[in-house]
Amino acid sequence: MKIRIGIMGYGNLGRGIECALRQNDDMELAAVFTRRDPKTVKTVSNDVKVYRAQDAVGMQDKIDVMILCGGSATDLPVQTPQYAKYFNVIDSFDTHAKIPEHFENVDKAAKEGGNTAVISVGWDPGMFSLNRLYANAILTDGKDYTFWGRGVSQGHSDAIRRIEGVKNAKQYTVPIQAAVDAVRNGENPELSTRQKHLRECYVVAEEGADKERIEREIKTMPNYFADYDTTVHFISEEELLREHSGIPHGGCVIRSGRTGERGENSHVIEYSLKLDSNPEFTASVLIAYARAAYRLNKEGQTGCKTVFDIAPAYLSAKSAAELRKTML
Amino acid sequence: MKIRIGIMGYGNLGRGIECALRQNDDMELAAVFTRRDPKTVKTVSNDVKVYRAQDAVGMQDKIDVMILCGGSATDLPVQTPQYAKYFNVIDSFDTHAKIPEHFENVDKAAKEGGNTAVISVGWDPGMFSLNRLYANAILTDGKDYTFWGRGVSQGHSDAIRRIEGVKNAKQYTVPIQAAVDAVRNGENPELSTRQKHLRECYVVAEEGADKERIEREIKTMPNYFADYDTTVHFISEEELLREHSGIPHGGCVIRSGRTGERGENSHVIEYSLKLDSNPEFTASVLIAYARAAYRLNKEGQTGCKTVFDIAPAYLSAKSAAELRKTML
Repeated sequence: MKIRIGIMGYGNLGRGIECALRQNDDMELAAVFTRRDPKTVKTVSNDVKVYRAQDAVGMQDKIDVMILCGGSATDLPVQTPQYAKYFNVIDSFDTHAKIPEHFENVDKAAKEGGNTAVISVGWDPGMFSLNRLYANAILTDGKDYTFWGRGVSQGHSDAIRRIEGVKNAKQYTVPIQAAVDAVRNGENPELSTRQKHLRECYVVAEEGADKERIEREIKTMPNYFADYDTTVHFISEEELLREHSGIPHGGCVIRSGRTGERGENSHVIEYSLKLDSNPEFTASVLIAYARAAYRLNKEGQTGCKTVFDIAPAYLSAKSAAELRKTML
Repeated sequence: MKIRIGIMGYGNLGRGIECALRQNDDMELAAVFTRRDPKTVKTVSNDVKVYRAQDAVGMQDKIDVMILCGGSATDLPVQTPQYAKYFNVIDSFDTHAKIPEHFENVDKAAKEGGNTAVISVGWDPGMFSLNRLYANAILTDGKDYTFWGRGVSQGHSDAIRRIEGVKNAKQYTVPIQAAVDAVRNGENPELSTRQKHLRECYVVAEEGADKERIEREIKTMPNYFADYDTTVHFISEEELLREHSGIPHGGCVIRSGRTGERGENSHVIEYSLKLDSNPEFTASVLIAYARAAYRLNKEGQTGCKTVFDIAPAYLSAKSAAELRKTML
């Protein structure tokens, strides 16, 4: 009997889930749910059943784990507690500051429904968080660094597109190599925002638009760009689609610390990701935690969990004995 | 009330534990146990109580977790099951092929005593194993690579020292950069033993010894050196002590894999360590898992565990809520 997965919301992430499920033999896609007209949703495979979002609650006996693929700004704060009453759920809620509040809401709902929920799954929050925790527990006297990129920031791309005269845009967050190298060397540098990342913008301007003004507006935009060294490249729409249609991302979490009688020995722990497709990788992490949620629920472990609360073995399709034999 | 740690066996690892405990406020060193004459054991701090190994069993009420610092070849297969009957125990058993058997023996003993045991803790097995598991669970269609070094291999250094005419020796395992780079680029190369690592030997020959013969014996030694490109440098004892007295190590675990409709997107996950002191870093990992063993035992989770079975939050001195707030 395979683990039956539901997908709530079918964008890049939902599509990634559909693809990732084909790589996991112990799971199957039971249904996709959408707020759009189901007939307009084009899934990768033709035989996927697409339902209206409001039909989900009636299908509790057909879904073992519901993966919520909405956005963190407005969808997930509502959807995750809502569906945790009826299903085991996984989300990728990534508004770091609001995680404690989200956790409480989801925990209450999941316990009410006797379900297991896992929130903030993906790579940051997610795998990066895990590596921060492990590295901090090991090297208690040390310093943490996180670098993101080179990768596309959807939020920053959107911010550029809202500027008057901009037809389309893509923004890359780029870690500054000299900073990464200093951290890797265990130099424990103090780094300002500007010293850690730079921002590269590829902009398609509308015909006749004032490019100088657009560039100035980008570079001085508070929070998004003002604190960074930003480069702006005006290109044609054709070039944007040809060269910048991917959604790559990645980055690294580094902790350096000291041990010994007087801290005389230095150590560097690094976890790094280089991802061709941010949503597909995130989807692959969500799938592994969906397997964990299913198993935890079978054991009666209900309520809200995060990646911190789940023993690694739950993520793998292999048995504990097989894991000890092949991976330890 | 602090977690009271016992150290069984005081060599480089035991010394590392003593130092690491000073960096963890929720723990304290209760006692060191040794098979030597306790009076001959020189601990870092003067106020450490050193007892004979055979006195340990009578001190169950004074030790919360016993960290076993013996060797994997002959000590731990006996000691870990033996002491798991009386104490929560942690070991760094690293004979990969014998882990399943060791697990069974320790599990039986720990359950008999109502204790919690964690075996094969350190960085490989340990943190590298964890990262193999996480990366495999996420990228199910992919390939694993582990590189070790640049670092000192005790086993290979010992093998050289057993050759006639060798007074002292140190061997470094060195990953081959071109191979590491190809893997990092997601090229999924097939790599032979020789293509992954090379071996650098620093040898002090006895006066009048036949250096050509020594070099030949090293380079042709089966299992240890014959399958590798090996370089041999004859140096003075003085230079060996001055330049090669450290015990650095490290390495990386890399998994590259594919996702998407037709595997069109490639991803690379890497975990890497750069360690000035192999035993001190290993000790720091053991300490974190000692904390976990103590907590698991309080919850009634007895028997043998590995790093795969323990949720990350158990390793940290911080509360679950604090971890969610600061590290997720």
